[in-house]
Amino acid sequence: MESKQFAVDQKKADLEYYWDSYSTINIHEQMISDYTRTHTYEKAINACNIKGKIVLDVGCGLGILSLFAARAGAKHVYAIERAAIGEKAIEVIKNNGFEDVITVIRGRVEDITLPVERVDVIISEWMGYNLLYESMLGSVLYARDKWLIKGGLILPDKCTMHINGIEDQWYYDNKINFWRNVYGFNMTPMRAEVLKEPLVETLNSSSIVTSDDCILTIDINTMKYEDQCFTSPFKIKAFREDFVYGFSTWFDVSFPQSGEVLTTSPYQVETHWHQSMFYLDEPITVAAGEIIEGTYSLKFNDINPRFLDIEISFNFHGVFHSATGTMKYQMQ
Amino acid sequence: MESKQFAVDQKKADLEYYWDSYSTINIHEQMISDYTRTHTYEKAINACNIKGKIVLDVGCGLGILSLFAARAGAKHVYAIERAAIGEKAIEVIKNNGFEDVITVIRGRVEDITLPVERVDVIISEWMGYNLLYESMLGSVLYARDKWLIKGGLILPDKCTMHINGIEDQWYYDNKINFWRNVYGFNMTPMRAEVLKEPLVETLNSSSIVTSDDCILTIDINTMKYEDQCFTSPFKIKAFREDFVYGFSTWFDVSFPQSGEVLTTSPYQVETHWHQSMFYLDEPITVAAGEIIEGTYSLKFNDINPRFLDIEISFNFHGVFHSATGTMKYQMQ
Repeated sequence: MESKQFAVDQKKADLEYYWDSYSTINIHEQMISDYTRTHTYEKAINACNIKGKIVLDVGCGLGILSLFAARAGAKHVYAIERAAIGEKAIEVIKNNGFEDVITVIRGRVEDITLPVERVDVIISEWMGYNLLYESMLGSVLYARDKWLIKGGLILPDKCTMHINGIEDQWYYDNKINFWRNVYGFNMTPMRAEVLKEPLVETLNSSSIVTSDDCILTIDINTMKYEDQCFTSPFKIKAFREDFVYGFSTWFDVSFPQSGEVLTTSPYQVETHWHQSMFYLDEPITVAAGEIIEGTYSLKFNDINPRFLDIEISFNFHGVFHSATGTMKYQMQ
Repeated sequence: MESKQFAVDQKKADLEYYWDSYSTINIHEQMISDYTRTHTYEKAINACNIKGKIVLDVGCGLGILSLFAARAGAKHVYAIERAAIGEKAIEVIKNNGFEDVITVIRGRVEDITLPVERVDVIISEWMGYNLLYESMLGSVLYARDKWLIKGGLILPDKCTMHINGIEDQWYYDNKINFWRNVYGFNMTPMRAEVLKEPLVETLNSSSIVTSDDCILTIDINTMKYEDQCFTSPFKIKAFREDFVYGFSTWFDVSFPQSGEVLTTSPYQVETHWHQSMFYLDEPITVAAGEIIEGTYSLKFNDINPRFLDIEISFNFHGVFHSATGTMKYQMQ
């Protein structure tokens, strides 16, 4: 009985390894070749005085941030990775001659034992789509509370999130209203499904119809775990007469000492995070200078905490049009 | 104890439903809006005499093929779908007034009970990437043997698969050799991983360096389950002096009576199946008229039968270059 269970567990582990190795190649290539992301981290690591320091890399992936820290003179780097990609990190670190400086520890941050009591610096690229989707911020906070010395550095340590209003008739017609007539059949039940799901895509900045507003400001040095879930009012002003088909969000993170900023703004260079788009059931017709007020709230799903439940309420009274409503979205 | 187990199962079921509903929107939109695919099925269904017939749709998805069959006058359509999208099919069929003609049956083809003993026609869009990745052909064969009347129709019923040699230096430099120098670090262990994984992408026909050869011909009316795994020799001739960085494969299916053909050839209109590319560890330098001989073999993975294990051996002796080798790939 026990050996049968072992066989089943082994098979499951094999499958997980397979799945994992499949997902990692594309994702890690995408992340590493995102120059804005990777090079901003490199500059931020080089610019803070990391020489002789003990560094912890939360979720090291292929180990690129650990390698940057080692190359910048860190005394030792502990690189934690739960996924199978950690095995590749070990190979890569050895191939590059850093096996004495970087120790890869396989496991969850919450489960592992660190060979030292305290670290001087925590580095982590924890941000997910829409900042918090499948993010590792919770693990960074756990590591901060458990291991970071008083006054230690967290890279990055500040973060903001923003919202604006967008025109996107092409997507609305071709991906949302598409379901109204499919080869002569009405498939509107799918339209409701599509609306529920935020779209992660790069926004053309010419689609931006309104000013933006900040909906989240966090300081990773001091924030609590619960601060990841929030409800924030926003107020955005139309630049021109147009239709607002939905809202888009993006985020910036900034680094201590260097002041380096990694932005995913639609006005700046595209990153692999793109922006997140939340479409309305009906567009809002705005005139220049008119204001859309609303609230944006985000929380982890009760059943599957990997999913984000997002709610956007809006309230608009304009010369052409008035509209109020609440849209519910889920990032899965 | 029992109620706890129920709670766990329910949570698992909820998660599966969630996961499923996420995957389906994009995939089904992609498949349905693939006009070559969907319209070829519509033409083939309209052109065969389906009026008054009992039809079985294997893996109906959103029910588009069942709707085509019903609109063409089928007496009754049984539409089988295991995934949660089947619930959307039920809604869509009702919204379009076909609920008396089409019965959606949720479950695996191998598990369900059909309310009739025999069907006149089986329709199925079973083809996956590289024809057989996550394909439902096995379920079509099961349905054929269990329910199809003698002389009944299978749409589509014939299938061929093809291979050629391709030039693709851009991909080779940017996605494979990329790993040789990543921000100054050597990450070649990832290069080997990338090479193992076939790329599903639309080939620019100007990248085609050789003639093509047929590596598989199947007749779904008569084939056995085991015929899905095969080893086939091939012989392809270079059109011009160039580098061959790898091979690409694609498939055609054809329909009975109408003779309609759905092709995924790189010389024809792009489909959502694209082509499948298999890269070599080192390119082969060919001169015009030279021949690459090889064998292509495909089987289901022993541990996870959803995965395809593919092996390509090649043998080449040219004026500039000679090369022999065997490459192993896995589609996961």
